[in-house]
Amino acid sequence: MFDHSNRIPVHIQEMKGYVPGKTIEEVQKIYRPAMIAKLASNENRLGCSPRVREAVLESLSAVQNYPDPLSLELREELARRNGVDPASILVTAGSESAISILCRTFLQPLRVQSPDMQSLRVQSSDMQGRAEAVTAEATFVGFFVQAGVMNAKVTRVPMAEGYRFDGRAMLDAIRDETRMIYLANPNNPTGTYMPADEFRVWLEGIPDHVLIVVDEAYLEYATGVEDYPQAIEDLHSRPNMLLLRTFSKAYGLAGFRVGYVIGDPELIGQLAKVKLTFEPTAAAQAAALAALRDEAFLMQSLDLVRDARARFYAFLEHHDGVYVPSISNSVMMVFGSESEASTFTESMLREGVILRRLAAFGLPHCVRVTMGTPEEMAHFEDSYEKVMGELHSKAVSVAQLRGAQND
Amino acid sequence: MFDHSNRIPVHIQEMKGYVPGKTIEEVQKIYRPAMIAKLASNENRLGCSPRVREAVLESLSAVQNYPDPLSLELREELARRNGVDPASILVTAGSESAISILCRTFLQPLRVQSPDMQSLRVQSSDMQGRAEAVTAEATFVGFFVQAGVMNAKVTRVPMAEGYRFDGRAMLDAIRDETRMIYLANPNNPTGTYMPADEFRVWLEGIPDHVLIVVDEAYLEYATGVEDYPQAIEDLHSRPNMLLLRTFSKAYGLAGFRVGYVIGDPELIGQLAKVKLTFEPTAAAQAAALAALRDEAFLMQSLDLVRDARARFYAFLEHHDGVYVPSISNSVMMVFGSESEASTFTESMLREGVILRRLAAFGLPHCVRVTMGTPEEMAHFEDSYEKVMGELHSKAVSVAQLRGAQND
Repeated sequence: MFDHSNRIPVHIQEMKGYVPGKTIEEVQKIYRPAMIAKLASNENRLGCSPRVREAVLESLSAVQNYPDPLSLELREELARRNGVDPASILVTAGSESAISILCRTFLQPLRVQSPDMQSLRVQSSDMQGRAEAVTAEATFVGFFVQAGVMNAKVTRVPMAEGYRFDGRAMLDAIRDETRMIYLANPNNPTGTYMPADEFRVWLEGIPDHVLIVVDEAYLEYATGVEDYPQAIEDLHSRPNMLLLRTFSKAYGLAGFRVGYVIGDPELIGQLAKVKLTFEPTAAAQAAALAALRDEAFLMQSLDLVRDARARFYAFLEHHDGVYVPSISNSVMMVFGSESEASTFTESMLREGVILRRLAAFGLPHCVRVTMGTPEEMAHFEDSYEKVMGELHSKAVSVAQLRGAQND
Repeated sequence: MFDHSNRIPVHIQEMKGYVPGKTIEEVQKIYRPAMIAKLASNENRLGCSPRVREAVLESLSAVQNYPDPLSLELREELARRNGVDPASILVTAGSESAISILCRTFLQPLRVQSPDMQSLRVQSSDMQGRAEAVTAEATFVGFFVQAGVMNAKVTRVPMAEGYRFDGRAMLDAIRDETRMIYLANPNNPTGTYMPADEFRVWLEGIPDHVLIVVDEAYLEYATGVEDYPQAIEDLHSRPNMLLLRTFSKAYGLAGFRVGYVIGDPELIGQLAKVKLTFEPTAAAQAAALAALRDEAFLMQSLDLVRDARARFYAFLEHHDGVYVPSISNSVMMVFGSESEASTFTESMLREGVILRRLAAFGLPHCVRVTMGTPEEMAHFEDSYEKVMGELHSKAVSVAQLRGAQND
C-alpha cells in the first residue's frame, strides 16, 4: 500500500473523523419501533416556516447560476433587523463554516518575524508558532475540531458547578500567545449560559490582542431570559468581538447551512476574503430570507420548546431523573456514570428515541435531549418508563443473583 | 480605529477580495439593453434537469434536519457510475470547497521535525516551512486563492504556444519541497487541454512525494474528444492522484454547490476529516442525484455547447477575430492589448452581453465567452458587429484627426 503518512500533517492523521449517529432509516430497519423521535441534533422539531418552500422554488429558476457571493439581499435584511451596517455582516454556510473561516484566518501558525533563530520557541514535540485559543471544556465540539485542523493549541477550561461557564478561569487561561477565546452563549450541549453581569466582567477582562468569538446559535431561545446578555450592544466598544448566528436552530434550516457573523467591518472584510466565494447556496439564501420574515413561525417554535421543557422537567423530577436547567432547545440529563448514560441511550434507541451521547463534548456521563413536539415528548416519556422499569428489574435480578451467590 | 493588523496574517491582509462582476439586475438598471446574455461564468445556459425541482421539493420536507454528512446515496451512485468504491469518493460543497479542503490538508506549513535550529530554512522575508505547490499561469484562479489562504508558495508555470499546458516546464518546476501539482483539464479559462499522450508522460514525471490534483470540472464537455485523457484509468497506479469533479457546469447546478473528489480511499478518509461535517446541503445532494440520472438533459447541454462553439468560431473567423479553439463550454478571445480587451468588454456590457475579463487569470488581453443558447449567441453576434463598427469608426476618426493635426 502507498504510504501517505509523510503527505498528511500528523495532527490531521491523529484527528478522529466524525462518526454520525444512526439515521431514522437505520433505526427503523434495525429495531422496528412503533414510532421514532429524533431528539439527537437540536433541530427544530416543528420543521421550518411554510414560506420557505415557495422561496426555494422561485430560486430554482436560476439554479444554473452561481449564488450571489455577497448574499446582498439577505445581508441587508439581517443588518436592518440587527441595527448594524450590512458591512458588519458576513453570511456563511452555517456556523460550522463561520468557525472554520475564523480558524483559517486567526489560528494560522505565527509568522516568523525575524531570521534570528534564538527568538523562536520550538520544542521537539511541538510545531513552530502554533496558534493558541481558549474555550470551555463542555462546549460546542465544532470549534475544537476546526481549530484542530489548523493545529492550534486549544485550552479547554473546566466548567464551574452546575455545568456553568467559569468566566474567571477562562480569563486566567489567557496568555500572551492566546489569539482567540470562544464562548457559546447559550451553551451547547449544557443549555446553560453566562449571565449579563458575568459576561460584562468577562468582556472587561479580555485583553485587546485576543479575538472574542461569541457563538449565539441558540440566541432566539433566550428570548425573555432577563439576564441573558445582548452581546450585540457591546460590539461598538468591542471591535475585537465577533458574534455567530445560525438559521439551523430556531429557524429550522439545518439542511440548508446558513449562518452569519456580525462584527467590525474591517474584520468582516478580511473574513470575506477567506470564506468560499460562493457560500452559502442560492436556495439557502432564499430560504433564510423567507424564514427571517416569518416571525409567527419563530414564535411557535420558541413556544414549542418552552412547553416541552416545562413538561420534561416535571416528568424527570417525578422520576428522580437529574437534569441541568436549560434556556436552549435541549436539556442535558446527568447520569451517575458513563455506563449508565450509555445503557440508557442504547435502550432508548431500541424504542425509537434517538438521543445524543456527549463523550465527544467531554461529558461521557451525560445525554442531550432535544425538545420536540408533544407527540415526541410523549414517546420519550413512555419509552423512558419502559426502559427504566426494565433496567431496574435487571438491576434487581443481578443484585439478587449476586446475593444468592454470596450466600 | 481599532488596529487589527497584528491579528490577521499579513498574507491574508495582502490578498485581494473577490470583486463580483455586474449582475443581470445591475446591467438592466444601468444600461437598459433590449436583451441580456450572461456569458460570463461558464454556467449551463440551458438551466438544469427538470427532474431537479421535484427532488429538491421532496428534500424540503426534512430541511430542518442536518444533511447526511456522508452524502451516502449520492456517493453510491457516483461510485457506481465511475466504477470505483464509494470509499474512493468525497462529496463536497463544489470544487471550490474541495480545493479548499485539499489546501487545508496538504498545504499547511511544514511541521518542524527537530529542535535543531540549524536545520530550519528561514528567510527574513519568509515564513517558516511554507508549503509549495506548482500549477500553470493561465488556469483556474480558485486554486491560487485557496492556496494563498494557507500562505503556500505557488509556482505558476507559463503556458506553451496556443495557451496550452507546458507539461515539461511544470515538471521542471517541481522541487523537493513541492507538495502538490494542480492541473485543470480541460483548462479554464483557455478551453485547451493536455492530451492523453502528454498527460501520461507528465504523470510519469511526477515524483511520489507530490500530490497530483487533476481538476476535471469541464470533463463532460470533453466527451468525444479522442485524445482527452481518462485520468480515472490511472488512479489504480497513482494513489497520489486526486480527481475533482463538479455539478456546477454541465449539470447546471452552480447555485447548489456540489462537487466531489475521487482518489485513494486512505487519502479520501483523511480529507473527510477536514471537510465541514455537513457539506453539501441536503437539497444539493438531492438535486445532484436527480441531475446525475437525467442523461438526456446532459446530452442536450453538450449539444448546445457544441453547436454554439461551431457557430462562434465561424462568426469570429468571418470577422477576423482571434480565439483559442476550445473543448469546453467557453471560448477565449485574444485581443492585441489589455486596453482593447477592456474596451470590447465594456462596450459589449452596454449592449447587455456580460463577458469575463481574465486579468485575475493572468490574461489581461483575453476575454472568456461562455457558449449560450442560439438566442444568446445571436445577441452576442449583433452586439459584436455594432460594437466593432463603432470602435472602428472611432479609431478612423481619431486617425483622421491625428492626420489632420499632422498636416
